[in-house]
This record gives sequence, structure tokens and C-alpha cells, in this order.
Amino acid sequence: MHRPGRHFLQIPGPTNVPDRVLRAIDMPTIDHRGPAFADMSRKALDGVKGIFKTRQPVIIFPSSGTGAWEAALVNTLSPGDRVLMYETGHFASLWNALAQRIGLQPEVIASDWRSGVDPEKIEERLKADKAHEIKAVCVVHNETSTGCRSPIDEVRKAIDSAGHPSLLMVDTISSLGSMDYRHDEWGVDVTVGGSQKGLLLPPGLSFNAISDKAIAASKSASLTRSYWSWDEMVSANETSLFPYTPATNLLYGLVAAIEMLNEEGLENVFSRHERHAAATRAAVKAWGLEVFCNNPKHYSASLTAVLMPEGHSADEFRRKVLENFNMSLGNGLSRLSNKVFRIGHLGDFNDLMLMGTLSGVELGLRKAGVPHRTGGTLAAIDVLAGDGGGTAIAAE
Amino acid sequence: MHRPGRHFLQIPGPTNVPDRVLRAIDMPTIDHRGPAFADMSRKALDGVKGIFKTRQPVIIFPSSGTGAWEAALVNTLSPGDRVLMYETGHFASLWNALAQRIGLQPEVIASDWRSGVDPEKIEERLKADKAHEIKAVCVVHNETSTGCRSPIDEVRKAIDSAGHPSLLMVDTISSLGSMDYRHDEWGVDVTVGGSQKGLLLPPGLSFNAISDKAIAASKSASLTRSYWSWDEMVSANETSLFPYTPATNLLYGLVAAIEMLNEEGLENVFSRHERHAAATRAAVKAWGLEVFCNNPKHYSASLTAVLMPEGHSADEFRRKVLENFNMSLGNGLSRLSNKVFRIGHLGDFNDLMLMGTLSGVELGLRKAGVPHRTGGTLAAIDVLAGDGGGTAIAAE
Amino acid sequence: MHRPGRHFLQIPGPTNVPDRVLRAIDMPTIDHRGPAFADMSRKALDGVKGIFKTRQPVIIFPSSGTGAWEAALVNTLSPGDRVLMYETGHFASLWNALAQRIGLQPEVIASDWRSGVDPEKIEERLKADKAHEIKAVCVVHNETSTGCRSPIDEVRKAIDSAGHPSLLMVDTISSLGSMDYRHDEWGVDVTVGGSQKGLLLPPGLSFNAISDKAIAASKSASLTRSYWSWDEMVSANETSLFPYTPATNLLYGLVAAIEMLNEEGLENVFSRHERHAAATRAAVKAWGLEVFCNNPKHYSASLTAVLMPEGHSADEFRRKVLENFNMSLGNGLSRLSNKVFRIGHLGDFNDLMLMGTLSGVELGLRKAGVPHRTGGTLAAIDVLAGDGGGTAIAAE
Amino acid sequence: MHRPGRHFLQIPGPTNVPDRVLRAIDMPTIDHRGPAFADMSRKALDGVKGIFKTRQPVIIFPSSGTGAWEAALVNTLSPGDRVLMYETGHFASLWNALAQRIGLQPEVIASDWRSGVDPEKIEERLKADKAHEIKAVCVVHNETSTGCRSPIDEVRKAIDSAGHPSLLMVDTISSLGSMDYRHDEWGVDVTVGGSQKGLLLPPGLSFNAISDKAIAASKSASLTRSYWSWDEMVSANETSLFPYTPATNLLYGLVAAIEMLNEEGLENVFSRHERHAAATRAAVKAWGLEVFCNNPKHYSASLTAVLMPEGHSADEFRRKVLENFNMSLGNGLSRLSNKVFRIGHLGDFNDLMLMGTLSGVELGLRKAGVPHRTGGTLAAIDVLAGDGGGTAIAAE
Repeated sequence: MHRPGRHFLQIPGPTNVPDRVLRAIDMPTIDHRGPAFADMSRKALDGVKGIFKTRQPVIIFPSSGTGAWEAALVNTLSPGDRVLMYETGHFASLWNALAQRIGLQPEVIASDWRSGVDPEKIEERLKADKAHEIKAVCVVHNETSTGCRSPIDEVRKAIDSAGHPSLLMVDTISSLGSMDYRHDEWGVDVTVGGSQKGLLLPPGLSFNAISDKAIAASKSASLTRSYWSWDEMVSANETSLFPYTPATNLLYGLVAAIEMLNEEGLENVFSRHERHAAATRAAVKAWGLEVFCNNPKHYSASLTAVLMPEGHSADEFRRKVLENFNMSLGNGLSRLSNKVFRIGHLGDFNDLMLMGTLSGVELGLRKAGVPHRTGGTLAAIDVLAGDGGGTAIAAE
Repeated sequence: MHRPGRHFLQIPGPTNVPDRVLRAIDMPTIDHRGPAFADMSRKALDGVKGIFKTRQPVIIFPSSGTGAWEAALVNTLSPGDRVLMYETGHFASLWNALAQRIGLQPEVIASDWRSGVDPEKIEERLKADKAHEIKAVCVVHNETSTGCRSPIDEVRKAIDSAGHPSLLMVDTISSLGSMDYRHDEWGVDVTVGGSQKGLLLPPGLSFNAISDKAIAASKSASLTRSYWSWDEMVSANETSLFPYTPATNLLYGLVAAIEMLNEEGLENVFSRHERHAAATRAAVKAWGLEVFCNNPKHYSASLTAVLMPEGHSADEFRRKVLENFNMSLGNGLSRLSNKVFRIGHLGDFNDLMLMGTLSGVELGLRKAGVPHRTGGTLAAIDVLAGDGGGTAIAAE
Repeated sequence: MHRPGRHFLQIPGPTNVPDRVLRAIDMPTIDHRGPAFADMSRKALDGVKGIFKTRQPVIIFPSSGTGAWEAALVNTLSPGDRVLMYETGHFASLWNALAQRIGLQPEVIASDWRSGVDPEKIEERLKADKAHEIKAVCVVHNETSTGCRSPIDEVRKAIDSAGHPSLLMVDTISSLGSMDYRHDEWGVDVTVGGSQKGLLLPPGLSFNAISDKAIAASKSASLTRSYWSWDEMVSANETSLFPYTPATNLLYGLVAAIEMLNEEGLENVFSRHERHAAATRAAVKAWGLEVFCNNPKHYSASLTAVLMPEGHSADEFRRKVLENFNMSLGNGLSRLSNKVFRIGHLGDFNDLMLMGTLSGVELGLRKAGVPHRTGGTLAAIDVLAGDGGGTAIAAE
Repeated sequence: MHRPGRHFLQIPGPTNVPDRVLRAIDMPTIDHRGPAFADMSRKALDGVKGIFKTRQPVIIFPSSGTGAWEAALVNTLSPGDRVLMYETGHFASLWNALAQRIGLQPEVIASDWRSGVDPEKIEERLKADKAHEIKAVCVVHNETSTGCRSPIDEVRKAIDSAGHPSLLMVDTISSLGSMDYRHDEWGVDVTVGGSQKGLLLPPGLSFNAISDKAIAASKSASLTRSYWSWDEMVSANETSLFPYTPATNLLYGLVAAIEMLNEEGLENVFSRHERHAAATRAAVKAWGLEVFCNNPKHYSASLTAVLMPEGHSADEFRRKVLENFNMSLGNGLSRLSNKVFRIGHLGDFNDLMLMGTLSGVELGLRKAGVPHRTGGTLAAIDVLAGDGGGTAIAAE
């Protein structure tokens, strides 16, 4: 049964994959040991470094982002190692659960999920760790479940101020290619990424950007690893090959996506996301609703989670939006289940797609009988117009 | 240079071709004389009848819609024949020019372009034609240059009331598959259609739906014709073949498009277009601008032409919209050049795409410094919500 | 019902469209009056000149090749004009029929269809035409129904030797992009082309390359024309636009196809076709069958028509090949119906595709019980190996 | 730089992905938690069972086949567990190395790689294992490095005859969807599969078909696992969802591929592969070369490895084939490096593609100066014709 027009995929990832990437993926698979493959994979392996802003190797796994979380840990740590995790939200929790599952001893700094990481708490904890038992600090750059961003550069400074040798691992799954991120400059040891958000691809590739220190750690790390092992990857990648069959067609898409991000210019990509996030928050405020993230310095640029008014079901609202307006919004996860909805405004996106999205939210609020003030969309237009809102309003 | 997000192609055709149609077109070309082709072309030839609401043959030309205009005339008329044309706008004028060029004597009922056909004027003229020198009445169902719709059923009645034997030819290029149209029931003799608007396809196919009376006329018509000749087409089509190489890949797309229109249901397709047109007009009114069509009974459902305020350039406005908001709007044609812009809201389209479109217009008006009241988009939301606008507005 | 593997589309056109072209066609349709279109169409309009080897304008019609035949005549001639046509086969006959249909007086030089044009006969006829009543000489460069090629440069010389002012019109539908062709150097006035053969595209575009003399003729030519009219095309094309909606998506494909032909190099494209034709003829000879073209100087490089042994049905053979081996071969047309089959070896094609094709013929001959010697495929391998056949044969 | 015609991807996987699968993959990514996804993934999860011939759950990982090897082991075994592996070739060796790496104690039954598993050796070893220390027997159904097939049903019987409780794990990466395989009937506990061979997809999905016994084993197995864990997969799959983001677009392709295999009929698919393998071996024999597998009962149906004559480089031969004939052949792996080349004849493949492939081998042997007798291709045609070779040979 055909539904007219384009679906608005406004979950915070997977995002709306551009046609140019889909068409690239749609080309015939080639021999992953032949010269044409090597040419293509060289472009992918080199090009992706620019997106992470690193000169180090970036490992590309044929897997979901979840795999890259696991890879970050198993390559650098040993059974029983302590890791310091910061529970900024659902995905930070999942990473913590994974760490436990594979035999690490994660220690969690709790939070109310409504802001990003407080670097001072990390610094404090590390200072207390005189014996340097903590081997890694794990934080999520952009918490996809809450729309809060953490200041990674300040986390780095906190570790340094504490004089602590811990590795720094950062999940950038929903920030990479959408929000400013600098693997080398910010001194990150392992950056975890995925293909299906700001990187414009369907799901199926994940990434580890790594530092010399992380590579050094991998030499003595004794957690069991095979599929996720960096060493064979790094050495095979030197000749543009992979130790096992790569996801060739997604690599075609990766090459196309990198080209597109570079054509637009990464800094332009980032400012576009910031602008769309600001317009979205203006709409939320105008509707009389509440942005879930309550620390303005930590607002995400790639998604906005919105608190549903007491007594109203976020999931019922989302269902009505999907049925009536052919738009998918993100749901509330675990403790936020049915309490928030999330608007993804990341990836291959522009002003008018955002206005369609926000209009769908406003129409959905009406359809679902959620109390709100009209005009969120107009508030967003004011932000997008960027003209102060004054001059053009009066016709008479 | 990549521009992020999807382009909004909101000219009144070609329209946003759905992925399913593009992917169908993207399959390998096959032997146009083989059995697989015959199966496919049968579906196209039979299925397209349902779109025209006819049981008669529908001719499919590998050409632009302009070719189907020519085909309608050369198959049914002879050099020097009089035809009565009704100048509802630019495209009616072009059809008239074509008729002159190929040796007919068109007689034109003029108009101010701001409404559709007045059937009384046709009846009056035909009644005066005692000698039945007028061989055909040619009208445009939906004038793409103005956004005015003509009442074809009433034109038929006018011809009948006049007791005149003239053929009735109707251009449905921008109405077919978007607005209610009934070739058989309305007694049309030749209906002219194109692929690139409500029919969801790229340009490259055109159509003639024909009546028994038109076929009879073709037996004695003496205008020169070869490529456009119906007779070889009709007989070849009987065995699902074509007299010369057809545009095979566009036929794949036609089969897919017909399926999609039928899945949604033609009546649903029409009411969707009417609703989007109403929302668009509400926006225009709220902006304090003027819909070019000044006869509410003749409002088009597939596009809305908007008058630019005196002293402002419609083309400059459109240029700013394209540059800043990645949306193409239709320009004013011939006498309307630079005076109107046209919003296409037809084809594979939905509420949120419309809201993106109208937001783009509102943003563009601001960017171009065109005086207007804000809030056209909100007015459109009221129409789309369909809830009377009252209940959901108050949050406090 | 899925048939495994790729279909072998070995009719002499439409040909196997390469993925790169199909994917280009599969991109969203854009505004044919906007700047992105102008950029793209500029590439098409300029690039296609190189394929015709002309510096003059090349007109691109949204139509089948049949339309370009008509366009060549109606733009340059007047009712009752005499044209000299050379019946090299079925398609030359069809062009002749078209000429009659539109009011010209074609005069035909007959042939047994088994060779290309004999320029001497043209010279002789033109010399006899003292009054210069013949306004155009029309020949088919590569007769798709027979696999015979005509020497266009010699036809030009024949016209010049006769001191005759006639225009020269050449159909290159199945030679363009496959066999050496030089519009300017050979002094052709109108070259007729189509998209679906050596030009690697699906059907739906046709071409007229024109000379100054042809343009001059068009100023006084009085045959009725509208859709096919050059003048509006040429002037619109100067600003990269078209007078009516072009087949935008096929133009995307044209740009891709031109790039591909230039990447391979036109001369390499031509020698590849010559080599494949030689290998095919070697196979036919080895099977003990007869190539229909009986003048070795006129062998086509893009297809080979093969005479079926007396008492055997070519169509039954082709049917068995299609059913059993998933390959489409070309049928015999009009007087050759059921008597020949045609092997297309043109377009996006390579040695192993040719060997699959010839193997399919050999398997089909067996399956259909057509008497033949085995080993045609081996003879083709000898040609393709290009090593004289000697060295590698002996293993012991 | 464009190379004309289709590349012949005749490595033993990835295989030539059919257009219908590529186009399916090329559709926009959707919300992996929404109802449209659930409908689609239900088809994939249910449909894939038919391909494995099981009624049990089949786990679908977003990973390469290598991941599914790891998953089979980590879900069912504990550190230090003994597993009996049978080194049929390179890939069996890799599985063995993986088992060691993750902390198992594999015991290997060696072989000369030139045949499949000898079930008697397994029975013998298991009988000797009175203490039932061996927890799993791991065999490769079709060894991709050698072209030898192992009799899985006989391995099952061997285990049963030995009265041994060991699990049976089978790698079907290069046999699934190409060669008869029956997970349930043959009593396999874990079947390992991949997407990129007989399953017609690009690489990026892998599979574990599992038995009740395997599930039971997973309850007490203590090897570390997270990404590969079955339990969350099985429970999420019950509602058509996945515990982490799945490779959505490849799942679209999986649904299409399953439909295609079922349309052709799995038994027809298998007999097609057997027939092509027989034709390939006939060619190899006719060339005077040696099929690497020396046990006719163990010939693979999906690929044929060919021994290069002493003193000739298989890799140099393959390089010449790629450069001159645009075909990729498989290389010799580890101990077979440079000694064999492998012809993949699996996946979406047909008679004429096979003939193109074998012609490319014959042409390559000539080009590389490898001593051989001509006519391998003719021998293959004899097999494909299936007519005994007699009737059609004589023309005179």
C-alpha cells in the first residue's frame, strides 16, 4: 500500500540517506582482493580520517555501532580492568552493561540524564584513584537518548589535570559528521563511530579511531578478541585490504558520503546542524513544551528530545504522527519510555525538511490532543530567517 | 558541490519522482519484441486506461507532452480546418500556435487568464457556426501557467446544447493523476497527457486517449503524420507491441506509477490534491498575497499561481528561494513573466512536504524583502489539521 | 518468476545499458529551467558533438530514432521534393515509406540487401539529374536489418563528382558510438542518431547532427513541422535550455554515456567492435553457416546477420535460445523474416560477453537441431586471442 | 577509466549480485523500530529459515561471515573446551585459529586438502573420547579454498555412531543457496552462513541457524560474548526487532534474494549449480589441467579449484585474465598460493555467463602461455547441451 510522498525519517538515526549514497551502494560488488577494490578502499580509509580529524588509522568494521563499542574495550583492556563510565543516558548505560558483560569492572558516575558530562566529577574521581586502577574513561559525546552533548575537550583536560594515565574513549555515534569533533586535537584514545547518522549511510559499518597510546595498550590487553581485533585490520589496511570480507557496497557509499561532507565543508555541516537545533528548540519553547536537556551549554546539535506534558503518552503521539503524517520520530528509551519524543535533525538535511518535520510535530500535537500553543513552526522560521524577525512581518 | 538534503522540486511539473518509480526505470532494458516486454507493456497499456477513465485505447508516445498536442490535431484534422481554442493561459496559447504552424485555422476565445473556460462562450460560438466549420474545440483542463481549472463536463454539455458535431480535445498534462478527470463519461474525443506531473514519472512519455469518434475522424483526416500516427500504434498495441522502439525504461516506470496510484486509490489522490491546494491558498491569503486565479470554482488542485506585489520581482524571489532554501518554484510565463510565481503541489506529495514548501515560500518572502504578513504556514496547518483550528490552540 | 543470471540482450539494439548509465538515469528529476539543469544539459549538448565528430549543433529530441528520421526530412525539404534513397534493407525501406507518407517523392535504388550502398550508382543517378530535382540523398550507414555497412565518405565523393547540390542525409542509428563516423569530415548534412545502441542508453532520445547547408535549407523548406523543428531547438540550446520539456533523466544518462565513451576512447571503442565482429564471423564460418552480408568490405561492426539453413526456422531457433539460454537475438525483418537471425555485438560489451553470446548461439543450434559444425566458439577464441592460433594449442 | 561491458566476478564469492537485489538495497533506510520495518524483517527472518531448511530460529548478524564463525563458538562453548576441527583447507584453518584465539582447545584432523571430510576419522576420534571432552565437531560444508564438499549427513551419522554428545557445527558460507543443505534433517546444531555467495547479496550479513541443543548449550556456555549473543537476538526477533541497529538495507536485499531463490525453486538452484560444476570440470579436463579436488564424490558445485601446471604462476595467470578479459578469478590461499586458481560458478549465474567465464579461462591460458589443449569450452558446451554430444556435431 503506497503512502504518497517521502517518508520523514526524523529519528536520531538512521537518517535520510541521500540518493547519491544509495546509488553508490547500488553498484555491483567487486573482488575485495583486486586492484579496483584497493583503489576504492584507499579513498575510504584515508578519507574517513578527515571526518574524525585524526592522522591515526581508523578501523572500519562490517558491523553496527554496538560492535565498535565492544572493539574499543576488548582491544585495550584486560579482564577485571576498572573503567570509569558516565551515565549520561540510555546509550551510556548500554555501553556500561556491555563492559560488565565482557568482564570489565565499570564504575559509573550517575546523572539525571538532563545534561552532558560534568568534567569536574571525572577529575575528582581520577584524582582519588591514586593507584591508577582506572584504565579508561568512557563518555558519550552526544547522548542519543537525551539530546545532551558532553564537552570532550574538557574531559581531556580533566584527565590531564588529574595527572591520570587513563585512556579516553568517546562514543560519537550520533555526533560524528554532525557536530564538531576532533579526535587528535582533543586527545581521544579511542573514538567509536557508526555509519547511519551524520555519516549519511545505512547502518552496517562502525569505526574505531585510535591513538598511539591506544595501540600501545592493545599490545598488552588480554581481553579475548578476534573479529574486533585491531592488529590484523591495521596491517591489512596498509595495503588497502581487509583481513576478512568487508562490506564492499557500504564502502562505496562511505566514499560518496565523505566526498559530500567535504564538498559542503565540515564546518558548514556543523553550523547547519547547530542552526537547525536552535530552530527546533525555538519551536519547542513556542509550543510551551520543554526541551529535555536542561543545560543550554549541552544542547545537542543533532537531535532534540522533548518532554511530553504530564498525563500524555509520547508513544501515542508518535504513533499518530506516523499514521497521519508519514513521519517517524524517536521514542523515549528505558527510564524515558513514553515520556519524551526525540526529533532527529541530523544528516542529509536542510531548512525545508526541518520545517516539514516541525510542522509534522505541530500537526501531531493537535491530532493527539496534546496541550500546546500554536506557532512553534513560526518561531523556527524566525530562527532560520536569521533576520531578527522584525523587518518582514508587517505587510500593511 | 553538494547541497544538503533533498531538493524541493515545487514547479508544477516535472514533479518529485518517487523512488519506486526511479528504481523501476533503473532496470536493464529488454528486447521490445520479446515476451517479457509484451507482459510489461500489456500492464502499461491496460493500466493507463484506468487513469484516464476510459475503455478506449490510449496511445503512448515516446515524446514530451508537446508531441501529444500535435498528435491530437494531426490525427483528426485536415489542412485549413477551423478549431476553436480557448486561451486560458500560456499553454493554451502554445497549443494555438502549434495549430497554426501545422496548417489549421484556430480561432481563439480570449480571456484574462484568471479563470478557466466559460462554457457559455463556447456554446455561443458553436451555435453561431451553422455551417459546422469548426472541427474541434480545444481546451486545457488545468492551465499550468495560471492555476485555473476548466469544467470539462460543462464544455461537453455546451457542445451538445449547441447541437454541434465538433470534436472535443482536452489537455490534461498537469491534471491527469492529480485532479478528477473522466475521458469517457465527459465525452472527450482526444485527451492529451504527459508523464512528468501527476503520473509520477520523469518526462519522456506522452498520451492520447481517444474516442470512437476521434478514430472515425482519423480515417479521413489529411494532415501529414507519421511518428504521431495512431493507426499503426493501435494495431501494434493490440499485440502489446509498438510500431517503433518504445521508451522501454519509462514504460517500466509507468507500470510502477499506475500501481502506486491504484494502491492509494485515485479518489484519495484527488482529495489529497484538493486539500493541499486549499492549504496553499489559505497560506497565500494569510500572507496577504493574492492567488492569481480569481474564480474559486476554477482553483487548480495541482498548482497555485501567486501574484507578486507590485514593484517586486517574482523571478528575483524565486532565485533567492532556490539559492537559500534549495527549492524550485515555477516562473511566470509570457505575459505573467516576473509577475507571478507558481507553487506545484502535485504528484508524489504529502502534508509535510507541503509544509516544507510553504515554509520555503514564507522564508523566501522574508529573504527577498517582499511585504507580507507572517503566518501563512500556520494557516496551512489549520487546514491540514482539519479540526476547525479551535481545540488545540490554547496551551494555558 | 526469476530466471537466474543476467539476460543476454544480443539484439542489435537496444543494447545492454551499463549500470553507470542506469544509475545516472535513476537520479531525481530536476527543474528543466533551473541552473543545475543548464549545467547538465550543456555537458550533453557539447559532449554529443564529439560522438558525431561535428562542430555544428546536434539536436536532441525526446523521441525514438524514427522521430529523428522524420525531423531530418521535414526541416530541410518541401512537399513534392524528390529524394534519392538507397534500399539497403528493412530500415532503409521504412525511411522511404516515411518520406512518402509526409509528401516527398522518394526514388529508390534497389539492392539485394546483401551489401551496403554502391556509391557509383548514386553518382550515376545524380549525374543524370541535370535539373537538380533531387534535393537529398538518404543512406543508412549501418543497415540494422542486414549487417551491411555503407561507405559514407565515398557517397560524399560520388555526390561531389556528380557536381550535384543534393543534401546528404545519413542514418547512424546502429553505428553511432560503435563504428567510425565523421559528420563534418565526411560532409554529411543531416546525421540521424538514436540513444539505444552504441550510445549506451535506453531508448527515448534521438539526434540530428546538422550542417550549415542543412540549416540554410531549413530556412526555405516548407514541409509542416512543429515538434521536430530545429530553429527553436537551436536557439533554446544556446542557453542550454529546450523549447519544450526535455527527457531530463535520459539526458543524465547521456552525460554519463559520453564520459564512458571518452574514457575508453572512441577509436578503442571502434576497434573493439571491429574485433568482435571478426570473431563472430569466424564463428559463423566455423559452424558452416553463412553471414548474410556478402561483401566483406561492407561487414558491419555492430551486428552480424546469419542466414538460417534452408528448411529451418530462424524464429524457432531464436525462441529456443531465449527459453533455454536466456538470450535475445534479433529476428529477420520483412523479406528476411524467419530466414536470418541477427547477433548484436555492440554497445557496452566485451570479449567474455561475446563468448557467452556465441556459446548461446552454438548451444541453440544444437537445441534446435539446426545442422552445423561444432567449434564456432573456438574459432572466435582464436580471433580474440589474436596470437595466430598456433602457439598455445598443443599441451603435450 | 571505463572498461567496456560487465565485469565477470568469478571468484567464489562475493558473487554477481542481481539487479533486483541491488535495487532493493537502494531504497531509503527506514526506522528499525517502526511497523514497516517489522513487516519487512518478519519476511527476512521467516524466509531465511527455508534456505537453511530449518524450523528453528536463524540469527542474522550485521557482520561478515567471520563473525558468524565466532558467534557459533562463543554462544555454545566455555574457555578451554575441546573442539574437533577438520582441516579441509584454508578456511577450516582460519576457523581453527579463531577457536584458539578465543580460548578454546581445538584439535585438528589434518588432510591433504584435496577432498572433503572423511566421516570415519571423526567417528574414530569421537569413539576414543570416552570422557566426552570434545564439545563440538566443526566442519566446513564446502571448502572455498579447495572446491571440496564434505558429506554433512555422514558426519552426523558418524557422531551418532560414536554415541557422542558433541555439538555439530557446519560452515556453509560458500554452499548455502548453491548446494543442497538441510540444517534440521542433517541434525546440525549450528550452521554458519554469509550473505555474499549463494545468497545473492553483497557482504555484510552473517547467519547462525541453531538447534534446540545449541540453545541449551548456550545457557551454560561461559565464553565472553556480547555482540554475538544469541539470547537477546532470539527474543528481539520474536517481535521482528533487533537488539541493536540492524543492517536495514541489506535486509531489504535479503527479502528480495529469498523471493528469487524460491521463484527459481531451491532444488532447481542446486541442480543448476551441479550442472555448471560438471561443465567446468569437463573444460578443465579437456584443457589437460587438473581439478584440485581429487575425490569425485566431494566435488563442489559452487566453485572449482584448478591446479596450475608446474612452473607456471597462478597469480600471473589471474592477473592477465583480469587485465585482458575483465574477469576476477579466485587465488590460491596459504599453502595453495600461486598454485591453484579458483573458478566461482555460484550465485545468480547461468549457462552463458559460465561460457563467458570458461572462455575467459581459455583465453587467459593462451595469453599467459600456460600449456593446455584448446577446446575446454567446447567440452563444457557438450555438458550444457545435455544431448550426448552426438547428434548436432556433424554438418556435412
